[in-house]
Amino acid sequence: MEKWNIIVEGFDPKQVTKHESLFSLGNGAMGCRANFEEQYTGETFQGSYIGGVYYPDKTKVGWWKNGYPEYFAKVLNAPSWLGINISINNCPLNLNTCIEVKDFRRQLNMKEGWYERSFTATLPNEQQVQVKVQRLLSLRHDAMGVLHYQITPLTADAQLQIESYLDSGVKNNDANWDEHFWNTLAITHQGNRAAIIAETKKTKFKVCTFMQNALAVNQQLVAAQATTHTADNYIGKQYEVNVKKGDTLAIEKIGGYVTAESNTENTLLAENTFALLNENINFATLLQQQKEDWAAIWETADIEIDGDVKAQQAIRFNIFQLNQTYSGKHSQLNIGPKGFTGEKYGGSTYWDTEAYCLPFYMATKSPQVARNLLLYRYKQLPQAIANAQKLGFSQGAALYPMVTMNGEECHNEWEITFEEIHRNGAIAFAIYNYVRYTGDSDYIKDYGIEVLIGIARFWAQRVSFSAEKEKYVILGVTGPNEYENNVNNNFYTNYIAAWCLRYAAEQVNNTHTAHASTDECKQWLHIADNIYLPYSEKYGIYLQQDGFLDKELKPTTALSPQERPINQHWSWDRILRSPYIKQADTLQGFYFFQNHFSKEALQKHYDFYSQFTVHESSLSPCVHSILAAKLGMIDEAYQLYLRTARLDLDDYNKEVHEGLHITSMAGTWLSIVEGFGGLQVEADKLTFAPQIPPTWQRYSFKVFFRGKVYKVEVLPTHHTVTIL
Amino acid sequence: MEKWNIIVEGFDPKQVTKHESLFSLGNGAMGCRANFEEQYTGETFQGSYIGGVYYPDKTKVGWWKNGYPEYFAKVLNAPSWLGINISINNCPLNLNTCIEVKDFRRQLNMKEGWYERSFTATLPNEQQVQVKVQRLLSLRHDAMGVLHYQITPLTADAQLQIESYLDSGVKNNDANWDEHFWNTLAITHQGNRAAIIAETKKTKFKVCTFMQNALAVNQQLVAAQATTHTADNYIGKQYEVNVKKGDTLAIEKIGGYVTAESNTENTLLAENTFALLNENINFATLLQQQKEDWAAIWETADIEIDGDVKAQQAIRFNIFQLNQTYSGKHSQLNIGPKGFTGEKYGGSTYWDTEAYCLPFYMATKSPQVARNLLLYRYKQLPQAIANAQKLGFSQGAALYPMVTMNGEECHNEWEITFEEIHRNGAIAFAIYNYVRYTGDSDYIKDYGIEVLIGIARFWAQRVSFSAEKEKYVILGVTGPNEYENNVNNNFYTNYIAAWCLRYAAEQVNNTHTAHASTDECKQWLHIADNIYLPYSEKYGIYLQQDGFLDKELKPTTALSPQERPINQHWSWDRILRSPYIKQADTLQGFYFFQNHFSKEALQKHYDFYSQFTVHESSLSPCVHSILAAKLGMIDEAYQLYLRTARLDLDDYNKEVHEGLHITSMAGTWLSIVEGFGGLQVEADKLTFAPQIPPTWQRYSFKVFFRGKVYKVEVLPTHHTVTIL
Repeated sequence: MEKWNIIVEGFDPKQVTKHESLFSLGNGAMGCRANFEEQYTGETFQGSYIGGVYYPDKTKVGWWKNGYPEYFAKVLNAPSWLGINISINNCPLNLNTCIEVKDFRRQLNMKEGWYERSFTATLPNEQQVQVKVQRLLSLRHDAMGVLHYQITPLTADAQLQIESYLDSGVKNNDANWDEHFWNTLAITHQGNRAAIIAETKKTKFKVCTFMQNALAVNQQLVAAQATTHTADNYIGKQYEVNVKKGDTLAIEKIGGYVTAESNTENTLLAENTFALLNENINFATLLQQQKEDWAAIWETADIEIDGDVKAQQAIRFNIFQLNQTYSGKHSQLNIGPKGFTGEKYGGSTYWDTEAYCLPFYMATKSPQVARNLLLYRYKQLPQAIANAQKLGFSQGAALYPMVTMNGEECHNEWEITFEEIHRNGAIAFAIYNYVRYTGDSDYIKDYGIEVLIGIARFWAQRVSFSAEKEKYVILGVTGPNEYENNVNNNFYTNYIAAWCLRYAAEQVNNTHTAHASTDECKQWLHIADNIYLPYSEKYGIYLQQDGFLDKELKPTTALSPQERPINQHWSWDRILRSPYIKQADTLQGFYFFQNHFSKEALQKHYDFYSQFTVHESSLSPCVHSILAAKLGMIDEAYQLYLRTARLDLDDYNKEVHEGLHITSMAGTWLSIVEGFGGLQVEADKLTFAPQIPPTWQRYSFKVFFRGKVYKVEVLPTHHTVTIL
Repeated sequence: MEKWNIIVEGFDPKQVTKHESLFSLGNGAMGCRANFEEQYTGETFQGSYIGGVYYPDKTKVGWWKNGYPEYFAKVLNAPSWLGINISINNCPLNLNTCIEVKDFRRQLNMKEGWYERSFTATLPNEQQVQVKVQRLLSLRHDAMGVLHYQITPLTADAQLQIESYLDSGVKNNDANWDEHFWNTLAITHQGNRAAIIAETKKTKFKVCTFMQNALAVNQQLVAAQATTHTADNYIGKQYEVNVKKGDTLAIEKIGGYVTAESNTENTLLAENTFALLNENINFATLLQQQKEDWAAIWETADIEIDGDVKAQQAIRFNIFQLNQTYSGKHSQLNIGPKGFTGEKYGGSTYWDTEAYCLPFYMATKSPQVARNLLLYRYKQLPQAIANAQKLGFSQGAALYPMVTMNGEECHNEWEITFEEIHRNGAIAFAIYNYVRYTGDSDYIKDYGIEVLIGIARFWAQRVSFSAEKEKYVILGVTGPNEYENNVNNNFYTNYIAAWCLRYAAEQVNNTHTAHASTDECKQWLHIADNIYLPYSEKYGIYLQQDGFLDKELKPTTALSPQERPINQHWSWDRILRSPYIKQADTLQGFYFFQNHFSKEALQKHYDFYSQFTVHESSLSPCVHSILAAKLGMIDEAYQLYLRTARLDLDDYNKEVHEGLHITSMAGTWLSIVEGFGGLQVEADKLTFAPQIPPTWQRYSFKVFFRGKVYKVEVLPTHHTVTIL
């Protein structure tokens, strides 16, 4: 267990897909799973992804409902530039067919941002070779990655055949009928360079996938002549080199993707691409840049923990992955729940971004990064208005999609798509949160106000008046707890709706915008003041929804382990009528609006809802952990923290092979900084009330706030806050 | 407008698919749409169906829920035996390419059970021909139909080429990717006979589709020599006959389906099939038998109406279709919502059968027919128990499927499949209804009790105890009104659940069965006595569900015509939170349990719920019509009756091309007999309190009851009940 490295040793074919996820690389613009470069006929999940490149798949549902999107965005497996087929004396290197594989080792160096794999293999022809491959995707050059593949014959002198290739004949892992989503337009090459220009079907994303190969023996460049093989969706450069026993042949392969407008001429695109490859671009320089760039990230993002190596490694892994997924450079990109590590979740943006990820990026990077996350939604406001129109709303009411790649809704379950509308609240809250962290109130004037008005209009139209209750109600919603569907008066939804209406009215007033009238704001405030919040006098708590107390209120301790997780063992109706809560729901409201409720109220709600919460979402334990810490329940907070901190590293849910839980990693960061660290924003000021988990000796973190960096160091007996 | 015939005149290509539905034929065992025999290149919806022959299609849903069936039954388009290609002097007869089509006429003779089509066409080669085709599917011979195709050259003597064929290369209209569901196993022929033996994929239903052709000129048999054409899924018998101008060539084609066990030898199956075709089987004899058999049906089933031809025709059309769909001979068959007239609704049995159709068959046919409908469910009890197990129930609890062909669930929407559980109630109620009609209480002892116990156990496990209400509640259901999903304490569901528990306990006691203990029955009664029924003191009514009064209670008159039907204009969430009711829900309970409620209570509930009911199910207006009649609101009852009586004939919903609404046709019958006729069963006796709709001068109907036939004749001034 290392503080800065993830290391696994030993070759187990059953672990390959899992480790392909864990050792994924990304640079915010593209990413790739840790697939082997050389041929591998064992089980593998091939995946390379380009940020923002998607395919609108036709919606297939059993029973169509009005308002469903006709198409939904699908994450596409991109053409591959990583492949290198190796033969030793005409026998292919393939770890699935080797007589023996030993000293197999993978290492992810999180401090410097590279991945290495090494092994010694005995081929079917009894030749033994030693292999070491390093790989990185450059933070400095969005379009580029590099790998350095070293191979040493150990048995005898050997003839090595190396075919380094590009392949645009890729498929998605989840494709139904061998669908191909890429049309290859042109294949070109010059010496040791090659490129495939391919275009996605329908969306016409044009991408030039390229490579440049260089060979060296014992670090001396070799001027090997390449034979070029091309096919419909393929180009390979084949080299034959005789290598002495004990000598090392290295292939340095630079590759990646240049995307272009669909009307860009192919030859021009290829020229522009090759022009990136000047003499300063090589493995050594790219590695050096990578070390510098990661050092800069860690400078503010790192959390140091003494006394608990597992915790130290885990939090760094999470921070590393968040930075691999989103760099903040591009306002058209966002944070997919699986980042660049898998295909699942067909769109890239969920409310996870605003509810969980924004604080991390806001606190560890420059305000511009967080601002780009807000601008992403601002730019998609027209689609959010169109989405609301589809559902019968008018006059500029906006409903942001539950899942999206391009602003359009990507999800097709009525109880989620049409009803899990609280997402609108998180998007407004993120604007509020951004402004209180950065002080950048111009953002509201210039952009945010339009989003806030669209959202307020949605809520104003979405409520209805209950003559029975003499209050505004919100009927037929799904709250954050997706284990209840189509419920009435979900506390969290109603509460955040009222907050949105008030905040929008306040900002309309502050900004003197012409986008909404005083009368309209009055109406918003009238609704906000008269919104119904279900409350139980008996328990002294707000109710998750109108019918909650009719449920059989058995705590989770009444469940047998064989039934857990319930979503794998129970039918959906049983889950829905049970009291079990997938993720923080009422407590999500208590988390967002901490200063609206007394500690006593928080304790009551925490105690009541915790007993029913099964935490079957990776986004759940962190909120409970933060609230438990706030209540001084440090042991419980720590136990909850452990449930997410190493979720992927220890593969708790046996699903890491599908990809990593990127967005929930932000929750782990929140658990430390807001939970243990007790960070709070109060009247334009940061305050801290730190506690220290039982096994830790010391921890420290930094937070960007209003142009300053706060460094907090916590020891068992005291803490210090330094403004840098 | 004819009382006994449906006639349409004039050829309109846009009406072809609609009329293919309207003139469909069936004999309870098979059916066919009124597709043209000769080639037709215009828009058509080809369909022949064999009762009980289905295909288990793989379930495709966006997001899988535990408990969904892996496969669902799909109605299959069967091999076609109806086709006859005609050429006149080598020019094909195709109404889509003719220079002129005149005197086009379709006639359905409901009294005698046959369909005729005639026209005069001028072909592209300027030859004019007159055509008349009669068709029937034999009630007496399940396996057999016949058609009589007459063609007369009007321009000049002509050479007619006739290719009468069988085709097993058929597809479903709703097939996704040109799927074929039939494998052709053997093709055989003998003289003018031919057969194709084909088998369904997966389910291995083996079917011999056969034909026998005979030719006559001016009614004199012609011994024409056939040329045989075969292909992979095809066999055609081609005849060439020279016919003088004005002479009539007739092709008499007998055909149909013989189904067999999948291990039946092909040659034996073909022999057995041809053996059916003895010399007494020809068009004339089959037509004569058909007239006799339909006369016998009409003898008890007919409803005579004087003074309103449209009403008379409509009710006969409905009775005719119900008899075409289900003969009651086979307990493995049931009544699909579209009968044999289309593919829609992928399984054949819904709760429609018990709730709407059973009374019709019970009252117009021998008790054996209704008994077969009950036995259908009895035989599927093991699957109902397995279905409940999938959803976590145990100890023999049974949940009948929402939609089924073979007892397994065929539907994949969680809010329907898992939650529309009231269907179980209708199945128990049907047993009660059958016994009170027939007096056959042995049925309960021999079969019904097991079904009742399985259903009672389901309800006993499905309720939960609400500490808040101190009552048993049923959470998370969809009632008959599918415009509310996942609601709590649907009055209808809770009420019928309690009734089921009481009735099962009573029958366990009556039958002294060993299948359930006294203690278990006590528990059932305890639950029944303590079930929660939502009630509003303010309105003095039972509430459709817990949250109904929170809705914006605007009556349907507040809707603009542009929004109707709301299911085509509103998104699903808007429908769900609206007060609008798709079909009788609370009132369905008042209909089933008429003697449980006072007339005053009925009036209150009728007035309250009617104002919100949009009747967007074909099963809705009939229940309202019956209750309105009971309340003496005869004009309103009649208006509601009109909404279903000619639903298909006048194509109110513009969807007749997909097939007819067979099960709702039973509702029309109920509207007359139970509504206007005021039929009630009280303490083993039939009573009638007839009224007469405004436009009618007289009407009469007959009802089978406890071995006797009651004939009721109603005039404006009085009525008579005669026991025959």
